[in-house]
Amino acid sequence: MADAEPKLTDGRNRIDFQTDPSRYRHWRLELDGEVATLLMDVDPKGAMFEGYELKLNSYDLGVDIELADAMERLRFEHPEVRVILLRSGKPRVFCAGANIRMLAGATHAHKVNFCKFTNETRNGIEDASQASGLKTICVIGGTAAGGGYELALAADHIVLVDDGSAAVSLPELPLLAVLPGTGGLTRLTDKRKVRRDHADFFCTTEEGIKGKRAVDWRLVDEVVPNSKLEELVARRAKEFAAKSHRPADAQGIKLDPLRRVRSEHGIAYGSISVELALPERLATVTLRGPAAPAPQSIADMMAQGADFWPLRVARELDDAILDIRANELSTAAIVFKSSGDPLLVLAYDAFLDANADQWLAREIRALWKRVLKRVDLTSRSLVALVEPGSCFAGTLAELVLAADRSYMLIGARDGDSRPPAAIALADANFGAYPMCNGMSRLASRFLADPADLDRAKAERGTLLAAPAAERLGLVTFARDDIDWEAEVRVFLEERASFSADGLSGLEANLRFGGPETMESKIFARLTAWQNWIFQRPNAVGEAGALRRYGTGQKPNFDTKRV
Amino acid sequence: MADAEPKLTDGRNRIDFQTDPSRYRHWRLELDGEVATLLMDVDPKGAMFEGYELKLNSYDLGVDIELADAMERLRFEHPEVRVILLRSGKPRVFCAGANIRMLAGATHAHKVNFCKFTNETRNGIEDASQASGLKTICVIGGTAAGGGYELALAADHIVLVDDGSAAVSLPELPLLAVLPGTGGLTRLTDKRKVRRDHADFFCTTEEGIKGKRAVDWRLVDEVVPNSKLEELVARRAKEFAAKSHRPADAQGIKLDPLRRVRSEHGIAYGSISVELALPERLATVTLRGPAAPAPQSIADMMAQGADFWPLRVARELDDAILDIRANELSTAAIVFKSSGDPLLVLAYDAFLDANADQWLAREIRALWKRVLKRVDLTSRSLVALVEPGSCFAGTLAELVLAADRSYMLIGARDGDSRPPAAIALADANFGAYPMCNGMSRLASRFLADPADLDRAKAERGTLLAAPAAERLGLVTFARDDIDWEAEVRVFLEERASFSADGLSGLEANLRFGGPETMESKIFARLTAWQNWIFQRPNAVGEAGALRRYGTGQKPNFDTKRV
Repeated sequence: MADAEPKLTDGRNRIDFQTDPSRYRHWRLELDGEVATLLMDVDPKGAMFEGYELKLNSYDLGVDIELADAMERLRFEHPEVRVILLRSGKPRVFCAGANIRMLAGATHAHKVNFCKFTNETRNGIEDASQASGLKTICVIGGTAAGGGYELALAADHIVLVDDGSAAVSLPELPLLAVLPGTGGLTRLTDKRKVRRDHADFFCTTEEGIKGKRAVDWRLVDEVVPNSKLEELVARRAKEFAAKSHRPADAQGIKLDPLRRVRSEHGIAYGSISVELALPERLATVTLRGPAAPAPQSIADMMAQGADFWPLRVARELDDAILDIRANELSTAAIVFKSSGDPLLVLAYDAFLDANADQWLAREIRALWKRVLKRVDLTSRSLVALVEPGSCFAGTLAELVLAADRSYMLIGARDGDSRPPAAIALADANFGAYPMCNGMSRLASRFLADPADLDRAKAERGTLLAAPAAERLGLVTFARDDIDWEAEVRVFLEERASFSADGLSGLEANLRFGGPETMESKIFARLTAWQNWIFQRPNAVGEAGALRRYGTGQKPNFDTKRV
Repeated sequence: MADAEPKLTDGRNRIDFQTDPSRYRHWRLELDGEVATLLMDVDPKGAMFEGYELKLNSYDLGVDIELADAMERLRFEHPEVRVILLRSGKPRVFCAGANIRMLAGATHAHKVNFCKFTNETRNGIEDASQASGLKTICVIGGTAAGGGYELALAADHIVLVDDGSAAVSLPELPLLAVLPGTGGLTRLTDKRKVRRDHADFFCTTEEGIKGKRAVDWRLVDEVVPNSKLEELVARRAKEFAAKSHRPADAQGIKLDPLRRVRSEHGIAYGSISVELALPERLATVTLRGPAAPAPQSIADMMAQGADFWPLRVARELDDAILDIRANELSTAAIVFKSSGDPLLVLAYDAFLDANADQWLAREIRALWKRVLKRVDLTSRSLVALVEPGSCFAGTLAELVLAADRSYMLIGARDGDSRPPAAIALADANFGAYPMCNGMSRLASRFLADPADLDRAKAERGTLLAAPAAERLGLVTFARDDIDWEAEVRVFLEERASFSADGLSGLEANLRFGGPETMESKIFARLTAWQNWIFQRPNAVGEAGALRRYGTGQKPNFDTKRV
């Protein structure tokens, strides 16, 4: 296995998840009223790591970071766009999927993180459709192989050119001995509802499927000869746009670059800070509540733009989580703290609720939903410490509910004049932020007795002190000042002493009780199988398929089936 | 990793899944009217493999094979039993879980197969409750650790003695760096609906939880002081028995030993045969239809006992699948064939339907359900070849539907006088045999359009020739004699050429579209995570927790979280 770290091509030592269109190397975003074209045109020389070229529109994490950025900008900066045409800028190829040399050279950790992020980006495309009415039509004029077809599967509608050569395929298993890593199998069975034996044939056929059979087997929605392609695409774009509820003549807001100051000990953003304690393997994320009252009007909010507190915190938190995931691999636990006035946080939540139909308010809620899902899916122990002066209210209270374990201090500390810790719930905690299992964090927490949910609901808006929060089941343990420090310290030390992989598996199983969705299947089932396969010599060993691909040598397999 | 094969203690070279009470070394079955006691009293010297002792009621596959056998006998031989008391025959310990030295010395393949079988046995205990009204009360008078507590979790009711020492625990993560491997995490979150932060605390606390907190946190149903234990258990047994629908005064039937003749090339059972083609890595399982008409009455069926064709075939198929799984690890594909009269098979199905309320008919259906689930969960490519003279009708047609790929021959073969291949559906195909996702194989197959299910339903009882079967979507490909041989051969060769692990992951993802259940979560999610963890150096490396357990040396962990 290749567990030497490949070098980043930009000379830095951290992966950066921030970008903007002026820096794109792989995508072009063309705007034309209600229709945007997102053109994939990967620069072969623009790889994120040394050692490979991004030929044939193959991608690595860098390509996907641009795609994720483009999706966010379409949502916030271009509310007038109703339909995205996802196309290739290269002839005869739509996208060759994840770059194989990148995968072959990547560490296990990078492969897992890469798959997770690309999955989140594909889910984001589907979320744009469901939550924002921003529809995606994928136009495939050449080969869409592996991750290329998986990208198409995230679209609302797939058009395949019928020219005897354009085809869709998932050749991972026959070519590379791994699974399609970006939700392909689950989207085949559960989204497109491809019959299982057809799916089996498709996923074991290197060259894929084209033409009429691709439609008959539900792999694409329609095929069209090249001569009629543009006319059809224009018609479909119009049809999808007509069904969209995006605002007709809204002005977008600019997603300014995040303010980030990195030091030896962490990162300071505008409203959050990350403090890294390397010996203890902890990352403490402190969220600061709003400094000013909630806006009076939509115009006020629009004027604040990317500085509007809920939007800024969501973007900063998203970046912080991604940064820890990708760059701080030995972090055992993320500790969430907060400081500020819980009533002010509630006021912002009330403002967003009062304007739930306004497009920007809706986008901000949807962004928080995605960021909180990203937190849920982060392979680190999640801990919330609710202390005096904190503001875990409404939206921020979701972080307490997302935590694997939470501690809340009873009363005040000696010599600390800040108000005792309080948690407050808001309407937002009861449905605005479903987890990937489709339920709110509170409903997932109270599977045993729905009356617990009603009891929590009755306390909306109340500042709940530690004993009440514990009684309502909102925190794991309420502790007084005498016990607090030792207990929290012992817990965090113990957590850091456990096996990293064991914890990943444990948390992935305990966090998502209750129903399953396509999304939870992708992350819980497909990801776990892929993680396993990514460890097996048949894929990553010296004679494994990933290592031997393109060498002319056949892989050498251990034939044992387990 | 320990990939040298440990030796079986019985001197043979195959694991045998057949046993009977006269040969039990680890369990005692005590019958007392409607209440049976299943006493776990593991013989430390009775290990299945060399190199470890089964101390403290710890178990290995051999112990579990006896448990599975006992459950089958309670269902078929003792229909009067309504409640099972699951207890320990040892003082101060209920069960210490899977034997750690066995796990540390086992091959990866054995660990995976062992977990799968123990999971199926636990699911069988729950199936006995749901399908047969055979309830289980687990009485824990000492420590129930790891797999010991997971065994308890399969019961309908858990009683824990309150003596300051008896406790339940899942110490796998802190002690061994692996997950509870027998459904424990899923049963915590989804069956007992333990709050996720409580579950997190519980699963990271070596010593477990006892007394009132175990009840408050829903880990057990009640605690009781030793002085009141027997009276409480007797009362609960009575209450559960009163709710059971098992027959009051039925006579059981004897599960005679299977007739099995093993040769170099496979195994001949009474109604099925297994032919092993080692160079091609194929196991061909041929099922023979009934030799005699269906019985005229329940009395006829009872008189035939274990020789009643549907029961015999189910038991033989179950054994054959288990044998291939455990002993023929390099088998790439299981090819199902059949021979006989499809109308006779339909007649047996009609007989079972007509007597659906009779206890034995119900048990036979439930057994087929479990065997077919075992097929679904078998990590081998499943292939059905529907040829002239075959009898894939009703219950046997489920094997065609369970297959990853099926081929059906159009018309007759030159010089072959047998009737052309036909498939026939029966009522049994529309609900009697749900997969672990809770849906019939046909409904899982036709997720895209329920009308397909209606069309299939309308053809119940019809002998469907290949073109019709293909049109209805019952088989993957209908092929004539000219194409058949080459196409099937190429397909099977290709299958054998793919990565074994890749196929396991692919099939696990494609076989189970649609909804999820606790069972499907256990097999698809928990199992996959565990497979991954079972490969990681943190668990199985030289300095991993499984290898270092009991040596006095602490494990040495790679701290990277992914």
